[in-house]
Parts: sequence; C-alpha cells; structure tokens
Amino acid sequence: MSIRRVAFIGTGIMGQPMARNLLKAGFEVAAYNRTAEKARVLATAGAKLAGSVAECVRDAEAVISMVPDSPDVEAVYLAPGGVGDSAPAGALAIDMSTVAPAVARRVAEALAGRRLAFLDAPVSGGQWGAINATLSIMVGGQPAAFERAQPLFRALGKVIVHCGPNGAGQTTKLCNQILVAGHLLAAGEALVFARKAGLDASKMLEAVSGGAAGSWVVSNLAPRMRDRDFAPGFMIDLQQKDLRLVLETARQTLAALPGTALVNQLMAGSQAWGEGRLGTQALIKVLERLNALPEGAA
Amino acid sequence: MSIRRVAFIGTGIMGQPMARNLLKAGFEVAAYNRTAEKARVLATAGAKLAGSVAECVRDAEAVISMVPDSPDVEAVYLAPGGVGDSAPAGALAIDMSTVAPAVARRVAEALAGRRLAFLDAPVSGGQWGAINATLSIMVGGQPAAFERAQPLFRALGKVIVHCGPNGAGQTTKLCNQILVAGHLLAAGEALVFARKAGLDASKMLEAVSGGAAGSWVVSNLAPRMRDRDFAPGFMIDLQQKDLRLVLETARQTLAALPGTALVNQLMAGSQAWGEGRLGTQALIKVLERLNALPEGAA
Amino acid sequence: MSIRRVAFIGTGIMGQPMARNLLKAGFEVAAYNRTAEKARVLATAGAKLAGSVAECVRDAEAVISMVPDSPDVEAVYLAPGGVGDSAPAGALAIDMSTVAPAVARRVAEALAGRRLAFLDAPVSGGQWGAINATLSIMVGGQPAAFERAQPLFRALGKVIVHCGPNGAGQTTKLCNQILVAGHLLAAGEALVFARKAGLDASKMLEAVSGGAAGSWVVSNLAPRMRDRDFAPGFMIDLQQKDLRLVLETARQTLAALPGTALVNQLMAGSQAWGEGRLGTQALIKVLERLNALPEGAA
Amino acid sequence: MSIRRVAFIGTGIMGQPMARNLLKAGFEVAAYNRTAEKARVLATAGAKLAGSVAECVRDAEAVISMVPDSPDVEAVYLAPGGVGDSAPAGALAIDMSTVAPAVARRVAEALAGRRLAFLDAPVSGGQWGAINATLSIMVGGQPAAFERAQPLFRALGKVIVHCGPNGAGQTTKLCNQILVAGHLLAAGEALVFARKAGLDASKMLEAVSGGAAGSWVVSNLAPRMRDRDFAPGFMIDLQQKDLRLVLETARQTLAALPGTALVNQLMAGSQAWGEGRLGTQALIKVLERLNALPEGAA
Repeated sequence: MSIRRVAFIGTGIMGQPMARNLLKAGFEVAAYNRTAEKARVLATAGAKLAGSVAECVRDAEAVISMVPDSPDVEAVYLAPGGVGDSAPAGALAIDMSTVAPAVARRVAEALAGRRLAFLDAPVSGGQWGAINATLSIMVGGQPAAFERAQPLFRALGKVIVHCGPNGAGQTTKLCNQILVAGHLLAAGEALVFARKAGLDASKMLEAVSGGAAGSWVVSNLAPRMRDRDFAPGFMIDLQQKDLRLVLETARQTLAALPGTALVNQLMAGSQAWGEGRLGTQALIKVLERLNALPEGAA
Repeated sequence: MSIRRVAFIGTGIMGQPMARNLLKAGFEVAAYNRTAEKARVLATAGAKLAGSVAECVRDAEAVISMVPDSPDVEAVYLAPGGVGDSAPAGALAIDMSTVAPAVARRVAEALAGRRLAFLDAPVSGGQWGAINATLSIMVGGQPAAFERAQPLFRALGKVIVHCGPNGAGQTTKLCNQILVAGHLLAAGEALVFARKAGLDASKMLEAVSGGAAGSWVVSNLAPRMRDRDFAPGFMIDLQQKDLRLVLETARQTLAALPGTALVNQLMAGSQAWGEGRLGTQALIKVLERLNALPEGAA
Repeated sequence: MSIRRVAFIGTGIMGQPMARNLLKAGFEVAAYNRTAEKARVLATAGAKLAGSVAECVRDAEAVISMVPDSPDVEAVYLAPGGVGDSAPAGALAIDMSTVAPAVARRVAEALAGRRLAFLDAPVSGGQWGAINATLSIMVGGQPAAFERAQPLFRALGKVIVHCGPNGAGQTTKLCNQILVAGHLLAAGEALVFARKAGLDASKMLEAVSGGAAGSWVVSNLAPRMRDRDFAPGFMIDLQQKDLRLVLETARQTLAALPGTALVNQLMAGSQAWGEGRLGTQALIKVLERLNALPEGAA
Repeated sequence: MSIRRVAFIGTGIMGQPMARNLLKAGFEVAAYNRTAEKARVLATAGAKLAGSVAECVRDAEAVISMVPDSPDVEAVYLAPGGVGDSAPAGALAIDMSTVAPAVARRVAEALAGRRLAFLDAPVSGGQWGAINATLSIMVGGQPAAFERAQPLFRALGKVIVHCGPNGAGQTTKLCNQILVAGHLLAAGEALVFARKAGLDASKMLEAVSGGAAGSWVVSNLAPRMRDRDFAPGFMIDLQQKDLRLVLETARQTLAALPGTALVNQLMAGSQAWGEGRLGTQALIKVLERLNALPEGAA
C-alpha cells in the first residue's frame, strides 16, 4: 500500500523544488512554511497550502521536513500541535534537514512512542540537485521505513543510501561536510600558491583535475574561485552551521579533527568580513587576505 | 625531424616502466641508473645500458631524467660529465622528476647556454600510471620544445598540459600535491568521525563519494584507509619530500598555507612512527593514534 | 553598611576552600551544595548548612556561587526557588563560576528585575589559589556592586580587576584560557623538539624560562611535563569546557581563533585517551603519541 | 691564563653593543664586519678595526661571531682565509649567531681538527639585552671551553647555561623560539577575542598577566599589540628565519610541531604584507585582517 498523500514542511530554497518534484511524480502534496509566502507559489503547481503543521499533516501518509536547524526540527516534530501530535498513526516521517545526529535520534524515539516511523535523510547536492532531482540522500532509520520511503526518495534524488539506524543519515551528511571543507581549503591553497608563483590558474586546474588531485570541488568550485564568482551554490553560513554540528558531535564522541577545526576558523573569517552569504568558494577570499593578494588581479 | 634516440636516466620504480613504454612505442632507448642493477632488466626489453650519464646521452636526440630530488637533477644535468657537458647540441632535455621550480629554472638557463632545450615535466599518477602510460604530465618550457616532446609524452601519459615557461611544470605538480595532501586529511578525518559515531564506513563512502564531497582520494584511498591496506601507491616519504618543496617555494614566494603545513606536520608523525614507506593513506594511522582508535577495529 | 551574611552555593574543589577563607575573614557563611556531603565538612569550620538554595540565601546580604557550567548557573539563579526567587531584595549576587559571557548577562538582567545586583567574577589560580586566597578575580558588573564586593574579594584573592559591565569578567576569564591553552601547546612542542634533538630538558628550561620565552606555564607546568607528573592543578576536562565557551563565544562574535581551535582539538585527543581528569600539562602526552616518543624515557 | 684579546666578527644591531660591552669589561677587541662602516663606530670606543676575518683573528685568544644565518657562519669559520685557517691554534671560537644545530656541530668538528675549541652560544634578549648586557646565553660545547668562556659571557649576559655538547646551545635557542612563537599567537588571539567581545584590552591584560596566563610576551608585547606599537624589538623576518631552522631541524629529527607550523604560516602572511621588518608583535595584524578588525580602532 504505497504512499500518495505527502505533507511537506519547509518550502525554502531547497524544499520548494523538492515539493515540486514530488508533485511532478504524482504525489498529492500539502505544503506548509512558517513564512507563508514561500509556500504560496507551490499552489499553482498543484499543492494544497496549509496554515499550520497540524493542518498540513492531518491526512498525510508521509511527512517530509526541510528546515534550517536542530531547534526547528524539534519544534516541527515535538512541539504541541507538531507532527507528533497531529500526524495519523502509522504515517512515515522523514526529516531531510541537516541537524545534529543526536536530535535525529531523539525525534525518532519520541515519534516511535506515537506509532510514527521516522527517517533522518539529509541531502547533498545543493539547490541544483533539488531542482534537478539529483540529490544524494543519506538515510538513517529502520530498514522497513527506508523501503517504504523509496518512491519518495526516487522522486527527489539519485544516490540513495541506507546508512544505518536513526542518526546515521545525519552523521553521514556531517562526514560529507568534513570532506567538502577540507577540499575547499586545499583548492584555495593550491590557487594561492599558483598565483604567488605566477602560474596560469586555468592551466594548473586543467593539468591536475583529472588525476589523484581531482575532486568535485576542484572541478566545480576552484574555477569559480579563480573567476571570483562567489554566487552561492551553498552558502558559507550554512557550511559553518554544518561544521558546528560536526564539531559538537565530535566533542560528544571524543573525536579530534584538527583540519576541520582549521577550516571552521578560517570560514569564521569569511563571516567576520560579512561574506557569510557568499558561496563556500569564497573561502579563497580569506586566503587572499592572509596572503596579501589583491582582489581581481588573479 | 622527429626524435628516435632517447637517453633515459634514472630507472627506478617510475623510470623503469616509463623507459619500457618508450621502447614499446618504438624509440631507441639508452638507459643509465646510478645503481646499475636497476637498469639491467631493461636490457632484455631492448634498451642499451650505459655506464655513465655521459655515455648514455652521447648520441641522444632527447634525454629524459627521472631521479629522486633536486640535488640529483642538478648533478645529472650540471655536474662535470653531466648532460650539459655531454649531450649533443640541439638535443631536447626533459626532467620528469619532482623538484623545486627554482632548480628547473636554473637547469633550463644553464642548458640554454649550451644549446640544449629543457622542459620540466613532472608527472602524477604513480607507479600504476607509469606502467599503464596513463600519467598526467605537467610541462614547463618553451612551446617549441613542448611540441617536439609530444611523441615522447604520448608514449608515457594521457593528460599532457603545457603549463607555462620553465618551472611552471614543477609549480603545477606542487599544486597537485597541495591538493592531494588536503584531500588525504579530509578523508582521514571523515573516517575517524564516522568510526567514533559508530557509522559503517563503507555505507558512508558510498553515500558521499558521488557528490560534492567526492574526490579521487575519497574513491581510491579512503577505502584503503578503511581496509587498513597501506601498500604504497605513493609513499609518505615522497609526499613529504614534495610538501617540503611546496613549503620552501611558499617561503620564497611569501605564500602562507596553513592547511598544507598542518598535513606536513601530521605526516611527520607518520615518519616518526617509522611509517614513511607506507602509502600516503597511512595518514589515517596518525589520526587514529590521536583519537585513541585501536588498529584493526575499523 | 558592609556585608556580613554570605550564602555560598557550590562547595566543590574550589568552593570549599573559598568558603573557608570567608569564614576565616569573619563572614557568616551559609553553605549549600547539590551533593550535600561536600558541604558537610564546612560545618565544623563554622558554616551553617542549608538544604536548598532557597534556604541558603533567605537571609543573605551576599550570595556567592561556584558551580560547574552555564546550565548550573542558570538553575541556581533563575529556576523556581532559585536565588532570584529567594534572596532578599538588595542582596548582592556574585557568580564566580566560569560560564558563557552571554549567560552572565542574561542572569544579570533577570536579577536586576528583582532588585538584586549581580557580578560575574570568575577566577584563575586553581585549587591552590583557592586554598591560599591568592586567586585572580576578573569582575564584570556595575561599579557600585564591584565596590560592595571588595571585602569578599579580598578574602578570596589577590589580583582583583573590574573588567567592565556584566559579562566582562567571564570574557576576561576566557582570554585567560586562550592564553593558557597557547602556552601549553608551545611548552609541549618545545619539550618534544628538545627530546627529539637529544637535549637535556632541564637545562633547556633553565636557559629559556627567564627571558622572552618565559611564562607561568613554562615555569610551573613544563617541569611537570618533563617529570611526567600529571596530577591535576587544573583538569583537561575543565580546560576543554572553558575552550568550548571560548569557541562558542567566538562563533557568536565572529572571531576566528585558529591556534585556540588547534589546542582544543589536540586536547580532545587527551579526552579520547581517557586522560581528561589529568592536569592540563598532560597535553604533552598527545604530542608524544604524535611524535612516537615512548613514555617514561624523557 | 685568562683571555684578553678578542676578535669580534659581525658588528650589526646585536654585535656592535656586544663588542662595546667587551671593551667596557676591559677586553682588547679587534672588530670585523663585511660592511666595514658598521664596524667603524667601534673604533672610537677603542676597538681595532680589521679589513678581513684573517686579519681580525690573527692574534686572538678568543673569536666571537654574530652573523645572520648558517651560510654566514660556515663562511666565517670554514672558508679559505676564515677563522679555521687564520686563528692561532688553541684559540677559543664562540659563535653567538642563531643557526642550524647541524651547522654548529659541523663547524665544531672542522675546527677541532685545527686545534680550535668551539662553542655555539646563541642568545636571547634582543637588542636591549645586547646593550644592557642582560642576554640569556645558551651554550653548547665542551665543559672546559665553557669554563674558559665565562669571563666573556659574563660581560655580555646574565643567564648563562651550559646546555650540552656542540649544537645544544642552538637547539635550546630554537626551543626558545618555539615558545616565543606560541606565546605570540596566544596573545594575539586573546586580544582579538577581547576586542570582538567589546572588552577593554588593558583591563584584560591587567587581570590575566599575573597568573597562570602570564608570560613575558603577555607583559611586554601584548601591550604593544594593543597600542599598535610595531617598532621591532625582534623582527618578524628574523623570527621566521629561526622558525625555518626549527622546522628544518624538526624534519631531520622527525618531530611534528603543528602549533609552530601554524605560527610560521601566519607570520608568512606578515611577510606577504610587507611587514617582515616590524616587530614580532605585528603578528596581531595578521589576526586582525583575518578577523575584519579595522586598524586603529582598538
């Protein structure tokens, strides 16, 4: 008995195109967003708009949430009138936000007591991945719930991996962000070094990106660093939120991550300069200031 | 008038399969190695063995060198009886070792005075790239010399980029090593974090490697980190030699590279533990010791 | 009209000797501790024991608290039955715990509404400073409240500085911890370097500690590092709590502190090895493991 | 049979006042400097000027050198016509420059073959220490030579420590520089943190400098950081030269020093900004740029 009616909570930059993809795939979608205007545009695409979380989830067979941070997730699921109170028993709840693994486990446990299955299923791939339904989805939770969610996931993403029990999706997403952070710093340092040495950055990137030095960041963000294109694929403020989750979780699990902590501090420099809403590739600006490299003379 | 007779100096782990690929491609190869036994096996493949650099290069139309470090390159080219003294005027000299960009420029200048064109053309791709002729070759020098060298490069590698004047090949290689270093640290920290959080490392790598967190290192070395397979594709001692060149060149060009310096220090920890001859993926062992993660319980 | 009756909340390792010093100085002390046994010993020294915060502060002219962390301070002052509810209007409240500056400001504001003056007055100097009344006391709050508190502070410490408005005492304490952290890492690296080079550590410390390289840590903790005396003057777990406050406050104020973050991560290594209850000088053990230096062969 | 005739080689910012102090103490001083003008002013103080190293040392009972870097020391002692060739057998040679420990050992060995005793005896205390004869002197070499040198050392400094065999003086000096580097970073981060939090820097320094956070750097250089007084007591370029020696020696002894490497990279940022000739306290400028703190608004 497959899922047809989906409640979608949080229709921002990511949530909106995701909801749209569910509609395209034939799901009935009820949408709710704290700032109501952001949901409105989905009405023309066929979504039913709801005035509250409670109203949104009342008839849902599945609930998907995509909200900014841990407290938002706790509010959506656990506050009075939230999903826990209002969704019909037996519904499947899926949080696709990036939040602390401990929050995912806490919500899962609370919902289990109300006969709601819960998956943590954060994504990577950014706004483009959301629009083009090419997200990577990292899922934590019960295998049965993971199976039930497949049709939804297939409407939203491409790489869909069941990583383990609740929390494992979030932890995997944090691993993803550790990697991205390290790759960004490496790319920035390579470009600074190249520029100091008088090298043509494009030739350098051409020569190295196909081999052992290659990465998604080198292929996709290093050219933007070079071209000083700082339009956000993913904003520094959000990367910093995720690195905060990484470092908090690391503290709780007694993990020492000197490289990640270094990137986190350098990106704090971006934020200090008011560059938090630029794309993560703007980390190069921190390195340029450190290195007395004038802007625009790349 | 294309090149046929090649002198190959330095037939170690990399040089030997490279010389072999030149033979396969139809070049006449004279080979010389300081430790003569290492050249001997090439005789059966059709190479002529030489007892000295001078003898090796006497009739060469092109000279290729593949030796460990800057002083070796200076000796091969500039010492009495070296390539500068002994190669016929008009020959093309190509150093494919990884050495300081300043050394490449110095040798180029010295050889120019003796009517020998010089290219710095370090490679990436390791022993397997050398064997399978899939190296990336990063070339610095005059365009005309680069053109003349094409047939040789095509016998040895796949991605062949002219990066700029002499030294630019070496500088590009050092950028490559900055990137690899950063990717290794990121991969190591992601795996440590995953293990501390009780995550299945394979699931994690599966979920992240196809997206924004993907890299050659994540796909190729992180699984070896996970499996504790430390057989060297590229040895830590060599990576450290290259990072030393990076940091010396950074010092000369006033470049500040905090991330690269951090990896360099952590890898010094590998060397302190006697792990310098393991592959670079053994950086994970440094992080495991830092994190009190017992070996073998991945 | 000077203060005579003092309520002392939190009589642990630090609070107990501090309360004792107040008794010695002639103050009447009512004491409360969550775990009642820890307060009991003070009864023989003349303190009145209280069964609750409310009972402890009922007649107090001044309240002093010395508790582990931010949530404890919020509970002591702001919970129902806490200082805010129970202390007589006009009393002076002094929190000498180390907590987030934001918490100090929040408590100050809440108490102001109940006609209670509040000072944040964290200390440095450790258990010995508490016993010998030689603490440094860093005070934030209104000047008038600071003046009223002088007799109390003089019974407890030696260097007493009014740092600014509420929160400034805590922020100053965090600066103190940034400095201690950096000094610890420097001392540890100097000792590791000396040992690797075969130097006599004692001679080295003798030669450097009187000049530009001198510090309290070099004079007091480096010899313990050398002698492998890890008895806690101040525990790594507590230093890490304080560095967490530093880095959280840094995040809120957009401050980038790469050195502090590095020490924080290395000390996480101490905790991972189960060394959190050793003194901060045990940071040397992290560096020794990194450097393959066997224990006990200093 | 005590020393009377001293040859002093290298009469720059440090060497000149040191030679002057020897004259004051009653020694006969012959002085030589590569740039002759820098020695001339010593003539009026009673020194005999020499036109070459050979002339300078010809009649010396002791030779003292104070030159910039390792190659200079090797030239002074080992080049044809150098101290090794020209000083009378039995003379005592003392190098007070800061150079690589390996160089000190090499020179000592070479001179031993020519019946010249050699001490490496680098100093700390800067220009003021040189002028006021309050240097710390860290000595490596034979005990007998150390004893013979006592009268000279007492004319130049205050803390005089025999650290071990040749090289031990230099290694100790490098430990000194590791400590100074770490203390500078800690002081800079504390000031940045204070400023971000709106704290009065003077109050903060007053409160912390007498306790566990105290150091020579906190007392002497942090106030200059606060006041933006960047006049050099010791220049960043020289500190970086010394950190280069630290990190090269660390490489040779397989020591991993992540904190020192971080300071080294941040100070490279000073040099990139053309601040290498400012005092080491100018490290604060690097941290201010990282943190978007405008100059002059401390």
